[in-house]
Amino acid sequence: MSHGVPPVIPDDGLTTRSRRLRPVVIVNTGDGKGKTTAACGMALRAWAQGWSLGVYQFVKAASWHTGEQDAFEALSGLDGRAEVTWERMGTGWSWTRAPAADAEASAVAGWAHIRAGLAEERHRFWLLDEFTYPMVWGWIDVDEVVEVLRTRPGTQHVVITGRRCPQPVIDLADLVTEMTKVKHPFDQGQKGQVGIEW
Amino acid sequence: MSHGVPPVIPDDGLTTRSRRLRPVVIVNTGDGKGKTTAACGMALRAWAQGWSLGVYQFVKAASWHTGEQDAFEALSGLDGRAEVTWERMGTGWSWTRAPAADAEASAVAGWAHIRAGLAEERHRFWLLDEFTYPMVWGWIDVDEVVEVLRTRPGTQHVVITGRRCPQPVIDLADLVTEMTKVKHPFDQGQKGQVGIEW
Repeated sequence: MSHGVPPVIPDDGLTTRSRRLRPVVIVNTGDGKGKTTAACGMALRAWAQGWSLGVYQFVKAASWHTGEQDAFEALSGLDGRAEVTWERMGTGWSWTRAPAADAEASAVAGWAHIRAGLAEERHRFWLLDEFTYPMVWGWIDVDEVVEVLRTRPGTQHVVITGRRCPQPVIDLADLVTEMTKVKHPFDQGQKGQVGIEW
Repeated sequence: MSHGVPPVIPDDGLTTRSRRLRPVVIVNTGDGKGKTTAACGMALRAWAQGWSLGVYQFVKAASWHTGEQDAFEALSGLDGRAEVTWERMGTGWSWTRAPAADAEASAVAGWAHIRAGLAEERHRFWLLDEFTYPMVWGWIDVDEVVEVLRTRPGTQHVVITGRRCPQPVIDLADLVTEMTKVKHPFDQGQKGQVGIEW
């Protein structure tokens, strides 16, 4: 499937190879499960290619911890692959010495950090996890995000996850998937499962 | 979210802890991207818990190879975690000495192998990737699959991916997510991206 023939061959003068190396913006949105886990699965592919990889989790407190993070920390630099950067940019996070006072300040500082990183092509694969929320809440300007992503230099893939992705980001994105809940154990009073949900 | 309070507290006599350790069947279906990648992200969580982990890819030829597989092979047994089993059960696959002659025979033999493994509790986390297809095509009996899953012993989580998941499997599952394509670069003649789609 991945190697398949697309329904339209664009008349853009590019070779198949160059079309395979085009930087993309990917959005996983919707109310269902799997937005972050799918992005992490994609990050595994980026890791396997040896690409520099950055995961930036918005909203999550700096103390939050998941199995994916353990796995990517184990994979970081392994088998001659690149280092993996993993930051949680919720309350308590800081890339300066002084931790941001609250969630909004952390998110704003986090976005400034990412914006600078995109300008200097810090990673080839970026995962901005739950990045829709600070946009939805008005903490980060959507038009600025679109402009920064649209004009990012080089070959930097960016994956954004979170519910209610703002329409301008959807419009910009190359690939958008909506995860929809069909059935969830929480509805029957099931608890979140160790090893399944974190 | 994962640690949240469900809307209903069931009157089943179980403790919160035992409800967190209940074995689940999870289905990722729909025409969108992210079914397999989300399942692989979940598998990272299982790996981080130190669980025995088995990935069985149906349909995929034995020669097919993805970045996720590289990553899980690198993670297998790392940092004191369990080994990861990864098998591709398409044409050319065999767990006996004689490779199955065709895709159908491979899938049927693959399911027999999994059925035996579930009976002996071989893994705590199973990913049956693209397992819906051999059911949809009538190669594997859906009612038998439901019965084997329903009566599986111990604490074995099973994740099934693929389009058009048969209704009896949906009915059995604890968590079902539908991935829906909102926008895909193939529509504009984009090629599959190295490091993104495999």
